[in-house]
Amino acid sequence: MAVPEQRPALPDQVSELTTARLSVYLRALDQLAAAGTRTISSAALADRFGFNAALIRKDLACFGEFGVRGVGYDVDELRHHLRHILGLDRGLRLVIIGAGNLGLALADYPGFAADGFSVAGLFDVAPAKVGTRSRGGIEIRHVDGLPSLIDREAVDVAVVTVPSAAAQGTVDRAVAAGIRAILIFSPGTVRVPPGVKVRSVDVTLSLESLSFFLANERHARNPD
Amino acid sequence: MAVPEQRPALPDQVSELTTARLSVYLRALDQLAAAGTRTISSAALADRFGFNAALIRKDLACFGEFGVRGVGYDVDELRHHLRHILGLDRGLRLVIIGAGNLGLALADYPGFAADGFSVAGLFDVAPAKVGTRSRGGIEIRHVDGLPSLIDREAVDVAVVTVPSAAAQGTVDRAVAAGIRAILIFSPGTVRVPPGVKVRSVDVTLSLESLSFFLANERHARNPD
Repeated sequence: MAVPEQRPALPDQVSELTTARLSVYLRALDQLAAAGTRTISSAALADRFGFNAALIRKDLACFGEFGVRGVGYDVDELRHHLRHILGLDRGLRLVIIGAGNLGLALADYPGFAADGFSVAGLFDVAPAKVGTRSRGGIEIRHVDGLPSLIDREAVDVAVVTVPSAAAQGTVDRAVAAGIRAILIFSPGTVRVPPGVKVRSVDVTLSLESLSFFLANERHARNPD
Repeated sequence: MAVPEQRPALPDQVSELTTARLSVYLRALDQLAAAGTRTISSAALADRFGFNAALIRKDLACFGEFGVRGVGYDVDELRHHLRHILGLDRGLRLVIIGAGNLGLALADYPGFAADGFSVAGLFDVAPAKVGTRSRGGIEIRHVDGLPSLIDREAVDVAVVTVPSAAAQGTVDRAVAAGIRAILIFSPGTVRVPPGVKVRSVDVTLSLESLSFFLANERHARNPD
């Protein structure tokens, strides 16, 4: 298994913003590695990708000492550290619940594999869908089979893409089956017990924020 | 057109967090209206949906006086105000660029209409896709037709669902055609000129945050 090394602080002590930045650093380092760059200073990393150099040093210092003074970071070493910190080195198993357009799109998303994520199952309740397959060939199973698959395949994350009205019930089923991390695309809020983490992706919320920006721009140009 | 009333402050003065909360309040009010509730106090609104009552009053006070002391908010009136503040009362026209699984899923997403969004066009560059249709019947056009459609249909927002490598070029084309608001699903960062707003939806980032949470949980249970 993975060698214990610089372990992250407890989740409560590290903000979601910090983990989001670690993800962004990792992508930058992946790009650098692909381009053949072997070492980079925090200043050059900041300059190249528009990050804040002081913040990079602070973020990485939370997780141990990575850089060598005067030389900077070893790109490959830092990539591996970040992947380990983010838990990506062991691979995450996902189930997708809700085989609508979005669920099907996610089931076949080629970007997951690069990051170490794999889809262990795709579920729905509609008799017309159960037994059919996504374009990529992933079979749609009935949600009644969810608990046994979660257990058998050691599933880590439930990705929930059901209609809003079914969201809470679906989340409850996943949690009852032992899931402790949920990525939800259904609008609205869901309740989970302590110890279960929910991240939500809400397209409409982002569009409303853009709408607000445009409404204000119009108003700024044409005040009443 | 819409009657000028309490106009929002300039975008710079209102944080994205505030607009996100306004969107969430709007959904709560939509639910209350559907259930027949006519008036509600900020305390009851907070209690019912798990919001912070003081923050609700502060957020809404930014945009004028809505509540009546001792009675609370008129649910319908506040819904209309929020829709106006968010610019949803005029309807937003979207184009979707990238007709992969995700682009097709978004093109056919039934939730857009309820919020006043409509899809003016769906674009791709692949000859095999151009001329075919989404399941919902939206035709896939070649991106060369993007500028004329944006102009002709007064498109407000470009939704970009192309692969990462094509993201910057696609955004540049949309901006050159007059788009000032972009919702992007491609991982990585894109550069836009001042006055253009980008919101990004990054599924992998959310999954990595969940991965981090799980890695720390494991470590907390089984310290080395």
